[in-house]
Amino acid sequence: MQSFDTVIRNARVATAADEFHSDIGILDGRIAALAVGLPAGQREIDAAGRYVTPGGIDSHVHFDQPTGDGSVMADDFFSGTTSAACGGTTTVIPFACQQKGQTLRAAVEDYHRRADGKPVIDYAFHLIVTDPTPRVLRDELPALINEGYTSFKIYMTYDALKLSDRDILETLSVARREGAMVMVHAENSDCIAWLTERLLAAGHTQPRYHAASRPMLVEREATHRAIALAELVDVPILVVHVSGRESVDQIRQAQNLGLKVYAETCPQYLFLTADALGCDDGFEGAQCICSPPPRDAANQQVIWDGLENGSFAVFSSDHAPFRYHGPDGKRAHGDNAAFNQVANGIPGVETRMALLWSEGVRRGRITPQDFVALTATNAARLYGLYPRKGSIAIGADADLVIWDEGGHIHLDNAMLHHNVDYTPYAGMCLSAWPAITLSRGEVVWDGQPRGAAGRGQFLPCLRPDPARPRRRAAELP
Amino acid sequence: MQSFDTVIRNARVATAADEFHSDIGILDGRIAALAVGLPAGQREIDAAGRYVTPGGIDSHVHFDQPTGDGSVMADDFFSGTTSAACGGTTTVIPFACQQKGQTLRAAVEDYHRRADGKPVIDYAFHLIVTDPTPRVLRDELPALINEGYTSFKIYMTYDALKLSDRDILETLSVARREGAMVMVHAENSDCIAWLTERLLAAGHTQPRYHAASRPMLVEREATHRAIALAELVDVPILVVHVSGRESVDQIRQAQNLGLKVYAETCPQYLFLTADALGCDDGFEGAQCICSPPPRDAANQQVIWDGLENGSFAVFSSDHAPFRYHGPDGKRAHGDNAAFNQVANGIPGVETRMALLWSEGVRRGRITPQDFVALTATNAARLYGLYPRKGSIAIGADADLVIWDEGGHIHLDNAMLHHNVDYTPYAGMCLSAWPAITLSRGEVVWDGQPRGAAGRGQFLPCLRPDPARPRRRAAELP
Amino acid sequence: MQSFDTVIRNARVATAADEFHSDIGILDGRIAALAVGLPAGQREIDAAGRYVTPGGIDSHVHFDQPTGDGSVMADDFFSGTTSAACGGTTTVIPFACQQKGQTLRAAVEDYHRRADGKPVIDYAFHLIVTDPTPRVLRDELPALINEGYTSFKIYMTYDALKLSDRDILETLSVARREGAMVMVHAENSDCIAWLTERLLAAGHTQPRYHAASRPMLVEREATHRAIALAELVDVPILVVHVSGRESVDQIRQAQNLGLKVYAETCPQYLFLTADALGCDDGFEGAQCICSPPPRDAANQQVIWDGLENGSFAVFSSDHAPFRYHGPDGKRAHGDNAAFNQVANGIPGVETRMALLWSEGVRRGRITPQDFVALTATNAARLYGLYPRKGSIAIGADADLVIWDEGGHIHLDNAMLHHNVDYTPYAGMCLSAWPAITLSRGEVVWDGQPRGAAGRGQFLPCLRPDPARPRRRAAELP
Amino acid sequence: MQSFDTVIRNARVATAADEFHSDIGILDGRIAALAVGLPAGQREIDAAGRYVTPGGIDSHVHFDQPTGDGSVMADDFFSGTTSAACGGTTTVIPFACQQKGQTLRAAVEDYHRRADGKPVIDYAFHLIVTDPTPRVLRDELPALINEGYTSFKIYMTYDALKLSDRDILETLSVARREGAMVMVHAENSDCIAWLTERLLAAGHTQPRYHAASRPMLVEREATHRAIALAELVDVPILVVHVSGRESVDQIRQAQNLGLKVYAETCPQYLFLTADALGCDDGFEGAQCICSPPPRDAANQQVIWDGLENGSFAVFSSDHAPFRYHGPDGKRAHGDNAAFNQVANGIPGVETRMALLWSEGVRRGRITPQDFVALTATNAARLYGLYPRKGSIAIGADADLVIWDEGGHIHLDNAMLHHNVDYTPYAGMCLSAWPAITLSRGEVVWDGQPRGAAGRGQFLPCLRPDPARPRRRAAELP
Repeated sequence: MQSFDTVIRNARVATAADEFHSDIGILDGRIAALAVGLPAGQREIDAAGRYVTPGGIDSHVHFDQPTGDGSVMADDFFSGTTSAACGGTTTVIPFACQQKGQTLRAAVEDYHRRADGKPVIDYAFHLIVTDPTPRVLRDELPALINEGYTSFKIYMTYDALKLSDRDILETLSVARREGAMVMVHAENSDCIAWLTERLLAAGHTQPRYHAASRPMLVEREATHRAIALAELVDVPILVVHVSGRESVDQIRQAQNLGLKVYAETCPQYLFLTADALGCDDGFEGAQCICSPPPRDAANQQVIWDGLENGSFAVFSSDHAPFRYHGPDGKRAHGDNAAFNQVANGIPGVETRMALLWSEGVRRGRITPQDFVALTATNAARLYGLYPRKGSIAIGADADLVIWDEGGHIHLDNAMLHHNVDYTPYAGMCLSAWPAITLSRGEVVWDGQPRGAAGRGQFLPCLRPDPARPRRRAAELP
Repeated sequence: MQSFDTVIRNARVATAADEFHSDIGILDGRIAALAVGLPAGQREIDAAGRYVTPGGIDSHVHFDQPTGDGSVMADDFFSGTTSAACGGTTTVIPFACQQKGQTLRAAVEDYHRRADGKPVIDYAFHLIVTDPTPRVLRDELPALINEGYTSFKIYMTYDALKLSDRDILETLSVARREGAMVMVHAENSDCIAWLTERLLAAGHTQPRYHAASRPMLVEREATHRAIALAELVDVPILVVHVSGRESVDQIRQAQNLGLKVYAETCPQYLFLTADALGCDDGFEGAQCICSPPPRDAANQQVIWDGLENGSFAVFSSDHAPFRYHGPDGKRAHGDNAAFNQVANGIPGVETRMALLWSEGVRRGRITPQDFVALTATNAARLYGLYPRKGSIAIGADADLVIWDEGGHIHLDNAMLHHNVDYTPYAGMCLSAWPAITLSRGEVVWDGQPRGAAGRGQFLPCLRPDPARPRRRAAELP
Repeated sequence: MQSFDTVIRNARVATAADEFHSDIGILDGRIAALAVGLPAGQREIDAAGRYVTPGGIDSHVHFDQPTGDGSVMADDFFSGTTSAACGGTTTVIPFACQQKGQTLRAAVEDYHRRADGKPVIDYAFHLIVTDPTPRVLRDELPALINEGYTSFKIYMTYDALKLSDRDILETLSVARREGAMVMVHAENSDCIAWLTERLLAAGHTQPRYHAASRPMLVEREATHRAIALAELVDVPILVVHVSGRESVDQIRQAQNLGLKVYAETCPQYLFLTADALGCDDGFEGAQCICSPPPRDAANQQVIWDGLENGSFAVFSSDHAPFRYHGPDGKRAHGDNAAFNQVANGIPGVETRMALLWSEGVRRGRITPQDFVALTATNAARLYGLYPRKGSIAIGADADLVIWDEGGHIHLDNAMLHHNVDYTPYAGMCLSAWPAITLSRGEVVWDGQPRGAAGRGQFLPCLRPDPARPRRRAAELP
Repeated sequence: MQSFDTVIRNARVATAADEFHSDIGILDGRIAALAVGLPAGQREIDAAGRYVTPGGIDSHVHFDQPTGDGSVMADDFFSGTTSAACGGTTTVIPFACQQKGQTLRAAVEDYHRRADGKPVIDYAFHLIVTDPTPRVLRDELPALINEGYTSFKIYMTYDALKLSDRDILETLSVARREGAMVMVHAENSDCIAWLTERLLAAGHTQPRYHAASRPMLVEREATHRAIALAELVDVPILVVHVSGRESVDQIRQAQNLGLKVYAETCPQYLFLTADALGCDDGFEGAQCICSPPPRDAANQQVIWDGLENGSFAVFSSDHAPFRYHGPDGKRAHGDNAAFNQVANGIPGVETRMALLWSEGVRRGRITPQDFVALTATNAARLYGLYPRKGSIAIGADADLVIWDEGGHIHLDNAMLHHNVDYTPYAGMCLSAWPAITLSRGEVVWDGQPRGAAGRGQFLPCLRPDPARPRRRAAELP
């Protein structure tokens, strides 16, 4: 048995299934041995009985993504991945977003350029397909899937992004044929536009009307439709950022009929409500504008239940980094822009893991195993990063978090490392935070960010796990 | 008490609620008295204890409607209404269909010209809104609603007819503001197009692939969406020609949440299955091409249950008269045209009433009261013809059917009076048929058609009944 | 045409289906003619365009029923029927309750003795089967059904009344074979007992804990079970006094599967909430102790929706007349008796019709037709009183209500004619009340009670309407 | 690092979350190290890249349990555990069944006596509570829970076993207070008795009428009721041997509302249908009499879906070993005993693991991770055997299965090691079987049974995992 580069001693290892005490031997950036009493490593880290979990995979983040409407994302691949690492995340999957008229290839190349030399942790890309031309469908997507871009997101809303039902069917067909995973942003575009116009016409421009412009049924309808389209094509889908009861019900009904419908939710649906969008005075509520909007306390409970009972596979941040002050972010259209002119999205890549550990695991709502599944393992499987990422297992990358528990961490934007000037969760008191984050065996956070720009590696993705033989296949024309 | 023009003696009167033995005194075309032992009328008809029901209202028929694809409807307003009268129907509500680019006013005038001098029974018009321009929405629709065109149909499929979700929202908004009733043809257009292309590409052109191109989920999805849009606008809708379980479930869930969602079904969903579209040999199955397609036996039972338990408000024919032989109808695109080139629709205006009385009432599946509600009263209320039409009540038009029961009527197209050369129900053996049909007190069928062309009157419609104060109103922006 | 005993002029007649203006000719206690301009009657009543509806059928009332626990019902068949008549009800169906060990025959004879010479309006009896011995099942029930006792109630709770599942199955089997209607009081007995003991042990004795002892799930569970038992036997049932969402959902699901499950609700579930049971101080809340208990505002809305969408067939009072003051009623066990020692039930036979007309019809929640169906026609059909009772139709008994609308009636127990010293609805302001009630053509209320004791006739019931051929029959062992 | 007693080389390790290649070092019966290239062990086993999974936990088996009706279980703790080990199961949890009138303590002592000196693998006991006297509830259950009997089963059917709803509530209350897990056999006793009597009276005595006597709704009703009772008490339950759609729907609805309702299913619901009970000729169908009975192909698919989507937590055998030939088992009441006199239950402890691996994992219906969760890890957690049992993790007992895959194993009773003379799965062709089973590091099966009688250890159980802080607690009286 070789000696180790690093040995973590006395870890309380949690995987998506298990929990046990062990040392962890790391060699060449990988987990090489699990045992009590491993031989000494070149570097020794004493976990002192603390929980050690797989490093988080944040499979829904936006870095350095042009918005086309004047606002600018504050995080590039350096600040974004640094923030992630400081919060216990060791892999991110940002988006390479096709612009209409652009080839997918060009989009991918563009985003690689944006990333080059910057990431401090490993990363893959989801594609965003906005223009599924015959060439994209026939040539580009299959080729890119083969090259490791095995998941793509489609939008049912936003003029610059949305696909028609027909385009969705064509795109899903490629996913079925090639074994890729399709993520769906499910909100009904026309409903939102219709409501928005009426709200604005009535002078209801304040941030809180953002929530009124996207009520739950707008999300429910699109969720039902996305499921129906996937059922027709007979292909798995993953519905992202699910916010409450009506959509959860649609998803669970589909699962109960044997459909492979996966779902993601985000911290904003556990810790914020529509009240965070403010009242009629003031613009601060703009900080919490995101889509779908946060709902209410009853829907928060539904999301907690869904994390516990398996309705959700993935817990991601949907990190969308827009500054609140200054002309580049939330105020790009002025200090009191109408809600529909405010950059849409909130930061969260750094707070995701600690929020869920503190409020989920430590309050007994979910188990440490649920936590690992939701923050790392399931994403690794669904997006083709497994077994390299997503677990603590022999041969896997030594992406690890050693947890510090029991303190009182008062969340404050000053302690975060993103380039955004606020956090929606400021003022919350957490009971846990990552003490040390390791990426491929290297410490990238130990109270200070330690990761060098560019050390992060690009991860080509495998075809995802659920693309196994389907039971309802074949008879499609 | 005046004397009567006509007295029907010894009727077993059935209304949507009641059943009683009485004479019926008719004066000036209206029901003037109900009593046993009425004074003699100028004309006496002995009902001999037989059931007398309100004349049917067929609220979903197509007469003389251009198709734009080469096929021609075989029934004009004379043959169509004659056929209706011979089957016990005394009011029809065909469609005045706007062509894209046309004003609604022009469409209405066009259809009045088509009707003029022809109908043998009374008639109203539904509008079909295919081009909801601002002028249509702001001016034409409100004006036409005021003039008695208080219901309109919208399509979620067919390129020449379909509206976007946005257009549907705008159209529903007018309905809400003006108190009109919106009928929805709910099938997902893109899904049908996608399936059709794939079927054709695979060489699956025979009539039976019509059913494969429009599976149940295509209808379910659009039904869910239509309900969501109506829920958002907070306005009643009526989903037409519902074919089976998945859509019924959507509709009942909506009703259970307090939404005013009404539903219609048709004989084809009780008496045909997809098997009627044939196997791979032969073209006869084209006779049964209609949309949604007939489903299977289990779904037939669901429709029967829905008629009995109140899920459905209206039972109509969706009469769409295309001849099978000859170059004008089902074969307009050739003797073996692909399924998507076959004129879509089946005849049924004459058989509707007898089918439901024979197979529904006489077999104990529904009550005579259910029958009256489904074939006459509910349509009268939902489309603003009540109290003039739809019941046997003092002051109502004397539109009546005296039933002949207990025989063995072998259905055969030769006995029908439409201008179509087949009936999908040929070969069925019925146990009842109208003996006499009266329209405003005049016999229009007594074994022979008796109605003169043009005797039928145009009926301006009132605002429909369900447009009463709504519980979820007001807070819309 | 004969002359009439009474002619009601210028009525706005409402039936369960229709509405029309007509005179109503009455002869020998029956409706003999409907027409405008009837010849003069011996007595003329000018309805002056006001609504005339069928007299109410209150199919769930308790009169002079021994309780066995010290409390005494305050209404006998005279005061109870007088109160009914003054509130527009012309038929009541109280219960003949078998005591364990007693024959059904003896129970029936006992209740006839209690009724003899007292009723001012017509009446039938439901049986309450508490002891379904083989003799009861084999001999007594069939014989009594043949004699006109065609409905019976079974209890799933109350030690003195409840049946085991096995007894319920046996009883339902008789109903199936004989074509009778079974009413079910659906609450889980053991759950209530368990909760009650725990509440009392914790010192929670005040009236409001009555609601805590019978939460919604207790009703839901028993409703599900009753439906399952009826599904197994394949027989219709009618679930009485349904109080909210969870039970409504069970009932609608069953209806959606084609089962003949009917439901009843009562005014207390529209106009009271659990708050009416008071807070910890005082005993007044005892006035509103009834089972199931009133729920909350959201459940009230569910009940309103269910009245409008057809989930409910019957709206009855469940009149259970216990005085609040004095030692015979609510205080039989002392001035501060524990909730489970308080006589269970509230009065309502006189207020039922006006509450629903005022708050239902006049506020636009339901139509006049819904009102008639719910308060009269459906009960007549489901309990075998149709066509003699329940509608305004030729040949039917002239049981009628002429409505006075538009005033402001402040509900106050002093205006009522029951023998109870309170009404739970005191303080409500209604906009309608019956001006005149006729029973078989005789005025029994015109602002004063006019009915003589004993004028009411016993009504043997026919087999109920829904007992028509069933679709799921036959294969039972 | 110490040397190992045994090293398994080149394993494809599967846990409930993960899959990786590793050697497994075993010391003192426990898993001491996971790594590639471990130092040599005293014994070396070459897994040759084959799957190694945790040994199965069969948490629902009956060994040596008196039936009270003349039939005798053929497996005692030696033959039963030998059979288990040969099929890859390393832990069993049979039942210690209280007889009415007996103390729980006496039952436990009795079953320990039955086990002593016999088991070849480790075992725990579930209690069966049939007589929850106050003493049992107050003293015995808490004491036994403390001693490691932390789960108990209750029956809703079988006269000798069933509890009333009240008893269930009391028993669930103890479980809540003490943190135990309650397993529920959910079938409505009265329905079964009623159907059985009618079937027998009609001469329908053959085995296949067993299924007719326990239709799906009998199970659905009891499942709904059990859930309602658990919801009232606010305590987790585990519904055992769920057989099809109607019950799965109830369970998923409960889970969706946030209730901790767990479910188990068994091989008979995947691989048998009611057809296995035979037709009217012959008695062979008696071999497949078990409760609930197998359903149909559609329900089999529902069960497969439930294994895949997380509806089920546990896959057990419900091994109930009755011989078919001879007077002690299925024929205890004669060669053609009526179905209700045939010993109820089928063998399956040895075939469970291979059936699910072959037909589930290898056919792509579930993942190896699902398999491990369903056959081992979840049971360990839910019944308090974790972390000692149920996974491949440092410190866990070295209970392991090395799989032989890819062959064609024709199932035949002769290859099995139970003491039953048939297997219901005879004739099936499997593609996998355990090559080697290790129990605490000792080979107990390698093509031959190797375990010595009595080597198995009794396992006191911890309180189960789901008994963590509950969200709906506290306000109970």
